[in-house]
Amino acid sequence: MKDRIGFIGLGTMGKAMARNLIKAGYSVTVHSRSRGPVDELAADGAAVASSSAEAAASSDVVITMLPDSPDVELVVMGPAGVLEGARTGSVVVDMSTISPEVARSIYAAAREKGVSFLDAPVTGGETGAIGAALSIMVGGDRDAFERCLPVLKAMGKNVVYMGPSGNGQSTKLCNQVICALNILAVSEGLTLAARAGLDLESALSAVSGGSAGSWMLSNLGPKMIARDWRPGFKVSLQIKDLRLVMESAEELDLPLPGTALVRELLRSVEAHGRGSDGTQALVTAIELLAGMDKAGYSN
Amino acid sequence: MKDRIGFIGLGTMGKAMARNLIKAGYSVTVHSRSRGPVDELAADGAAVASSSAEAAASSDVVITMLPDSPDVELVVMGPAGVLEGARTGSVVVDMSTISPEVARSIYAAAREKGVSFLDAPVTGGETGAIGAALSIMVGGDRDAFERCLPVLKAMGKNVVYMGPSGNGQSTKLCNQVICALNILAVSEGLTLAARAGLDLESALSAVSGGSAGSWMLSNLGPKMIARDWRPGFKVSLQIKDLRLVMESAEELDLPLPGTALVRELLRSVEAHGRGSDGTQALVTAIELLAGMDKAGYSN
Repeated sequence: MKDRIGFIGLGTMGKAMARNLIKAGYSVTVHSRSRGPVDELAADGAAVASSSAEAAASSDVVITMLPDSPDVELVVMGPAGVLEGARTGSVVVDMSTISPEVARSIYAAAREKGVSFLDAPVTGGETGAIGAALSIMVGGDRDAFERCLPVLKAMGKNVVYMGPSGNGQSTKLCNQVICALNILAVSEGLTLAARAGLDLESALSAVSGGSAGSWMLSNLGPKMIARDWRPGFKVSLQIKDLRLVMESAEELDLPLPGTALVRELLRSVEAHGRGSDGTQALVTAIELLAGMDKAGYSN
Repeated sequence: MKDRIGFIGLGTMGKAMARNLIKAGYSVTVHSRSRGPVDELAADGAAVASSSAEAAASSDVVITMLPDSPDVELVVMGPAGVLEGARTGSVVVDMSTISPEVARSIYAAAREKGVSFLDAPVTGGETGAIGAALSIMVGGDRDAFERCLPVLKAMGKNVVYMGPSGNGQSTKLCNQVICALNILAVSEGLTLAARAGLDLESALSAVSGGSAGSWMLSNLGPKMIARDWRPGFKVSLQIKDLRLVMESAEELDLPLPGTALVRELLRSVEAHGRGSDGTQALVTAIELLAGMDKAGYSN
């Protein structure tokens, strides 16, 4: 018999992921703060719980998909939270991006109640969530991972076991470091191209296929050129993820000068009212440094 | 009838490129400071000239492939240089990576002698040079570009016309900006992974296929993990290219904080005696910042 799933947190990502579980034939009970997505999922066939504890009580696997560490702590360990309702032997899978440290503390709290906990953050954005094509990086006990693998595969393609609790989150933070610096690479490269008077589309096509090539160049480069700021991933969320990176790096006594620089530049982008723009708006920080906003290039 | 080619500068790249011209049926006259590669090319069927002027005198298209701006200035405009020998109506194609400014000054000097000049720097490294798979970014007059296109296509796959003189070099500098920051991305991401105790191969496979993906991650990531410092592209050459970037950016009043940071870190790598290592050695600069060299991780 298929695991019964509890799903808590129906933002852009969570909604699409819960939907894929329903499509894959799982019986899903949802809970979320905002009414709209709950009603949508109910229309798709989900049961609705009035609290996280209630969602957990009727589930074998409880998934959380929330903005930040404190949200997950509250929803899992707080009053009427997942661990109040969770049955012995069930598994809680947090797919949010949170601190590896916090993930490990939740793992310990869950364990005391006879509940397994996996940290299983994702990459791939809304498109990946909708298409069940997410990459999922998983930390926690291997037997819990094996047990949840079919559930995870209903939401993602590349599901990788990374070792003990927290390691999924640590992997996600490495991913965010690389993403952030790759966006800075495109931002500085294209601003230099613009300033040198190059045709930006030609420059992009000249460099994309070679050693400068990246997912960010192919996907965000054209958006920067088109001045299309619609978010695939929001500046404010990238800042939050890089805060987690820098906290983790500080704990590990690891200076990350490039990542720190990108974060400061993104904070400048946010300070200019662009926190809800996509991360391609990082290019405007470089333009601002160069006074190109005054020249009317930026908008 | 096929253009007769003069080829000046038979380093790792130049040697492979000249060879591909011979293979494509061009009659090639070579000139280079070091005897070894000249003899090799002669064995492949090239004629040998005793000066740049002499190589130019018997050629319709003269190609230079040299380390830096002063080398190209000397070889093209110096005594017994290309412009002393070049015939009216011939084309000089500089495929080195040099300053866009210097490229434009050579263009002007060539023009006075009735000679066309193209700046046509390449990417793709030794592998691309050997396999005639280089990307070639070309600046200069369009008619000279059209005329040289068959010659360029014997050495590269992606040949892009970028506009007036200097624009090929400017495009190459954008390429180098993106490459350099992508290497920093991999360096910081993998060092965080190592410090967090992750299995590096698993971390690489977890993040390579998603939005963190890049040519550098796929190609230099495994080398960093294997501590394989053999150069695809040398630290010292990357430092030189980023010097050209920063000079160009200064002229354009454009601050490039990320690129400047990478250059300083690469200078530290060079200061530690690793100038001849490949650019993947950038990871050792991050490890050094974290004291990981003392912990014996670095070697």
